[in-house]
Amino acid sequence: MSNQNTQPGPITSEEIFAKHEGGKLSVVSTSPLATRRDLSIAYTPGVAEVSRAVAADPSLAATHTWAGRLVAVVSDGSAVLGLGEIGPAASLPVMEGKAALFKEFGGLDSIPIVLATQDVEEIVRTVKLLRPSFGAVNLEDIAAPRCFEIETRLIEELDVPVMHDDQHGTAVVVLAALLNAATVVGKDLAGLKVVIAGAGAAGIAITEILLTQGLTDVVLLDSRGIVSRERDDLNAIKAGYATRTNPRGLIGGPKDALEGADVFVGVSGGKVPEEYLTELAPEAIVFALANPDPEIMPDVAAKYATVVATGRSDFPNQINNVLAFPGIFRGALDAGATRITSQMKVEAAKAIAAIAEQDGLRPDYIVPSALDGRVAPAVAEAVAAIAREKTTV
Amino acid sequence: MSNQNTQPGPITSEEIFAKHEGGKLSVVSTSPLATRRDLSIAYTPGVAEVSRAVAADPSLAATHTWAGRLVAVVSDGSAVLGLGEIGPAASLPVMEGKAALFKEFGGLDSIPIVLATQDVEEIVRTVKLLRPSFGAVNLEDIAAPRCFEIETRLIEELDVPVMHDDQHGTAVVVLAALLNAATVVGKDLAGLKVVIAGAGAAGIAITEILLTQGLTDVVLLDSRGIVSRERDDLNAIKAGYATRTNPRGLIGGPKDALEGADVFVGVSGGKVPEEYLTELAPEAIVFALANPDPEIMPDVAAKYATVVATGRSDFPNQINNVLAFPGIFRGALDAGATRITSQMKVEAAKAIAAIAEQDGLRPDYIVPSALDGRVAPAVAEAVAAIAREKTTV
Repeated sequence: MSNQNTQPGPITSEEIFAKHEGGKLSVVSTSPLATRRDLSIAYTPGVAEVSRAVAADPSLAATHTWAGRLVAVVSDGSAVLGLGEIGPAASLPVMEGKAALFKEFGGLDSIPIVLATQDVEEIVRTVKLLRPSFGAVNLEDIAAPRCFEIETRLIEELDVPVMHDDQHGTAVVVLAALLNAATVVGKDLAGLKVVIAGAGAAGIAITEILLTQGLTDVVLLDSRGIVSRERDDLNAIKAGYATRTNPRGLIGGPKDALEGADVFVGVSGGKVPEEYLTELAPEAIVFALANPDPEIMPDVAAKYATVVATGRSDFPNQINNVLAFPGIFRGALDAGATRITSQMKVEAAKAIAAIAEQDGLRPDYIVPSALDGRVAPAVAEAVAAIAREKTTV
Repeated sequence: MSNQNTQPGPITSEEIFAKHEGGKLSVVSTSPLATRRDLSIAYTPGVAEVSRAVAADPSLAATHTWAGRLVAVVSDGSAVLGLGEIGPAASLPVMEGKAALFKEFGGLDSIPIVLATQDVEEIVRTVKLLRPSFGAVNLEDIAAPRCFEIETRLIEELDVPVMHDDQHGTAVVVLAALLNAATVVGKDLAGLKVVIAGAGAAGIAITEILLTQGLTDVVLLDSRGIVSRERDDLNAIKAGYATRTNPRGLIGGPKDALEGADVFVGVSGGKVPEEYLTELAPEAIVFALANPDPEIMPDVAAKYATVVATGRSDFPNQINNVLAFPGIFRGALDAGATRITSQMKVEAAKAIAAIAEQDGLRPDYIVPSALDGRVAPAVAEAVAAIAREKTTV
């Protein structure tokens, strides 16, 4: 117990700030530099041979520079954690943490790139100009709806894997958890009635991945209520989903949406009063993912639902992106994929779900721990396998 | 002798390529990530406290993120080593080497940023948008004359130290070497007649730093001959120096310039025929800095000059930027300087010169070895001292 890592008791601000002094990342040389000979190999004149070779055969950049396996963690600081628009400098501690997780779980190098602009064109242009510096792009904490356009544009205009983690990392882990939760409650996945509270980055991506899995009864809620074709206050993205969700044509607020629902997924941060949960179907599933304060506390949700999950590490069933993004990027880069496809995300979700399933599913164990070292390699393997299959077809 | 670092014999291409596989850099986490507690400190929810604090007090970005001590090594791949315009991807091995040297000698983290554009506006705009990601900018291997405008713009428009190393790193080490060479030959620095062959990034910066040191008889050569007021084919930069150099109004080529010169500095790569050196004054100084092939080989130059230096590690008196840039950036960042001034560069040169002087100057020892661990700390201290002095005045 003398080890600081296992130090018991609550984490103090002093401890957090002390651990952040000087930042959380360091760049090290993997090449020795102790002798003239070392210098002549890693720098001039030796390096000129490598540069000349890359100029002649650009594919060597992937094997003989670090860029081929380097992930740029790109943010504009516009939607950071639950803090909102705090700006690029203030988002940096989060991006450093993300880079540390990429290394710890995915074995990938990554660098935080925080941008002093929130203009879509400028962000897209900047990332494209930086393209030769890295091998993949993890977009992070960029506010909706700009995040959708930025991700779509970069996927189309770059030849490297691009993923907005707040959308797809979350959606992948939610799908993994829902696959196993459906098993636990003995319901068929495609037949589930799902209510998603929050129509931002995560809510939209969760909706999309559930639709690809054959679910038809998905109801999306934003701050003004159920997203429906009757609404005339929807942005283009939500208007699009209004036609692909809510098949029963529901109108109203969260309570109306929850009537008879099998699944509630909260990604909004808005509180859900306990009485709303009385509307849920029997053997219900509640994912209250707002962090650090869930939409409804798990002990309350457990009165109305068989399976309850949150985003917090101090409750069972933590739905955390770290289960997804390190393995997804690692698999995509291992396979030399130029895109992260829907299929790759679904395979990632299945790989995460399979690990918990092997261990034995229980209402309080539908996803592996965020620290489970088996997850990222399994996700990477599944993602790389489907990427290679598609490439060779 | 079993250690690969001390392996004798010529360096082979196989060895160079093997050492470059996967690149030469790695990003590591300086914060542990083994337990839930670690994750809660380095990532959510703990990191939110730090982000919130930085948002409230932006000065904390310098102390509680890695950006405050992070150098962006920025290139467009337009003038890489002696290879010329090989493009950003092919420049990356050089930038990785540079980042490794920053770490080894300056103890600074740095990341290569290679840009897929050569447009001045785009480069300036991109680096400005990236500003919150780092604490200093080392411009590298950008072709003249664009490099002058890019550096000037970034110095004016950014609040962090910016330096184009091909200009100023070289100029600082040349000044250091010239200070000591003048002592060796017993001539007064300000009275030296200097010929500089090459009016690109290095040649212009060397000219500038010599003019600030009181030298008046500096003659600049480009590929068409002596830069003079009579020429009508000069770009704006060279035309400016035509009025500040060549006080004797020389016209002609290298041979004309060398008549009676005390110092020849080659930074052009163009070969100098042996017969030209017969024009030099007695007790002359030759710095033939083209790499890997000097303008004239040192054994030949030694017939006509008392002190001979090159850019190569296998000859005496190696004039290498690594003596300057790690200490300059380290000193500027240590002092919280927002600019790298002329005075800081001159102090850096004096600090480098002082180390060789302490050891005892000889014709074949006018600068310390590129691997001399005393240099960067001494340079950093000198640079930080003058930076702090100016700040407090």
